[in-house]
Amino acid sequence: MDRIKVLIGSRQEPDIEAMLSDIPSGVEVHFLPHGDPLRAHIADVEILFGHIGEDAISEANTLRWAHQPHAGVEGFMYPAFKASDVMLTNCRGLYGTQIAEHAFALLLSLTRQIPTQLEFMKTKHWERVPCVELAGMTMGILGLGGIGRAIATRARAFAFEVIAADVEPINKPDTVSKLFGLDELATFLGQTNILMVCCPSTPETHKLLSHAQFNEMPDGGYIVNVSRGKVVDEDALVAALRSGKLAGAGLDVTYTEPCPPENPLWEQENVILTSHSAGASQHIRRRAMQLFIDNLHRYVAGEPLVNVVDKQKGY
Amino acid sequence: MDRIKVLIGSRQEPDIEAMLSDIPSGVEVHFLPHGDPLRAHIADVEILFGHIGEDAISEANTLRWAHQPHAGVEGFMYPAFKASDVMLTNCRGLYGTQIAEHAFALLLSLTRQIPTQLEFMKTKHWERVPCVELAGMTMGILGLGGIGRAIATRARAFAFEVIAADVEPINKPDTVSKLFGLDELATFLGQTNILMVCCPSTPETHKLLSHAQFNEMPDGGYIVNVSRGKVVDEDALVAALRSGKLAGAGLDVTYTEPCPPENPLWEQENVILTSHSAGASQHIRRRAMQLFIDNLHRYVAGEPLVNVVDKQKGY
Repeated sequence: MDRIKVLIGSRQEPDIEAMLSDIPSGVEVHFLPHGDPLRAHIADVEILFGHIGEDAISEANTLRWAHQPHAGVEGFMYPAFKASDVMLTNCRGLYGTQIAEHAFALLLSLTRQIPTQLEFMKTKHWERVPCVELAGMTMGILGLGGIGRAIATRARAFAFEVIAADVEPINKPDTVSKLFGLDELATFLGQTNILMVCCPSTPETHKLLSHAQFNEMPDGGYIVNVSRGKVVDEDALVAALRSGKLAGAGLDVTYTEPCPPENPLWEQENVILTSHSAGASQHIRRRAMQLFIDNLHRYVAGEPLVNVVDKQKGY
Repeated sequence: MDRIKVLIGSRQEPDIEAMLSDIPSGVEVHFLPHGDPLRAHIADVEILFGHIGEDAISEANTLRWAHQPHAGVEGFMYPAFKASDVMLTNCRGLYGTQIAEHAFALLLSLTRQIPTQLEFMKTKHWERVPCVELAGMTMGILGLGGIGRAIATRARAFAFEVIAADVEPINKPDTVSKLFGLDELATFLGQTNILMVCCPSTPETHKLLSHAQFNEMPDGGYIVNVSRGKVVDEDALVAALRSGKLAGAGLDVTYTEPCPPENPLWEQENVILTSHSAGASQHIRRRAMQLFIDNLHRYVAGEPLVNVVDKQKGY
């Protein structure tokens, strides 16, 4: 039997690479040499851990499975990959906890005026400032996947009324009081004081939140985006912040990343940007590798993989 | 029947003062003129809304009830007031929600590196930084009153193991897995990654957390203090932060307030100070006045007041 060749697209910490000792027999693991293009090493690879771009897919003659060690997969959604027989898996389900913690860090930093207090500290200035109590407000979660659900659980304990909108006809969890389809977005936004953006970047969600959508919201609301910047029309967001329609924005993601210097969000009052680090956790690399190794055992045993991405839907 | 004279110690917002139209008949309300000493206006007052100090208590010949429009009452715990027949009520129960939100703002700002990201924003610098995932850690709540319980509810939803220590033999709520007495403080601290200080300032809690106590904690923990700075020995706290025993401190309160310029906490890394604003909320003044007015109706009807402070215990 031919050996199965796995290529790991980037070096990992030694303790994470050591986990690869637990792979099935008949599998050999290689690492892409640092700085080398993937296309020069992909020809006889059956399984890729990492991203493959348009420049390399034509060389990937034996590739059967690519695993994205993150949750978002929009980087794979080009025609040649979508049309190929290569299976795609991702790390959905591994990010809910830390991203929910990050989402609340952004929201509560805004409402408890942490940026103002940090500035006060520089001049040893002690001054109480008004803060916003959130309890009793309505949180609207756009995209009720694993991350949205983790946020909903925490929001209930914070005494939010929690509503959600999702493109899929999903079941409503107990933490959510009302669930809307995307065709009911205006109604959903009309009740939303705190808008949590948790949906993937797809053609359907591209700039889904623009002038009209922010105008549906009650005055003085907040937006927190912990999924993808491309869901938000940033010109409309800046306008909503400047008019006071929105009282603040906590953004882990921007339309273009890294956020370019000319983006007005850098200097907009009541905005916190956190450099796409909501997924960061001391546990994530271990969990992501374990998920891959577990799937590798399933692959060798001929069992269905978990976390397979629907390439037509894009998530 | 003689009229009952109420003195309000400081002017309130007009909409809050307007609530006083709903007082029982036979009660007349006066406001202490701004800048005047209380002792010059207290002689015939029966009910005081606000603080009375040692300089004025000897003049308070007709005072029967003082209401503290905050939760902490240590400012009343001087011998002449404790020995007097004046009843004391406070606003306990009105602060749990907003202080719990503030406590999580402090904690999550530390673990998600909000101060670092805010500094990055000034130079339009986009860089992911390591963050700490809290889920699965143990939160130890010191002082399981209304504020501690509000924090416990939220901590459970954040997937903390929640333990607590309290001076009173209270019932353990379901949100808390283990409840310790103060005589078991070392055991409690030995299991505590995240220490939430929620207890009142009393002789028993004065500098309760010092070198020995921080040393009981597992390495790399966090402390958040949203009650009283006098519970913490700040020299010991600074030492624990400098040694890395503690990874961070979120402090709404300090030993002396306003925090004096010579306090090293101002410049200590991984410290956030927030100027005693955890109790701030757009709702608090209305709630505090409503509680007072409700108690005023009870007082006139000869019914027991709510939120009566035990002057011997000091809370």
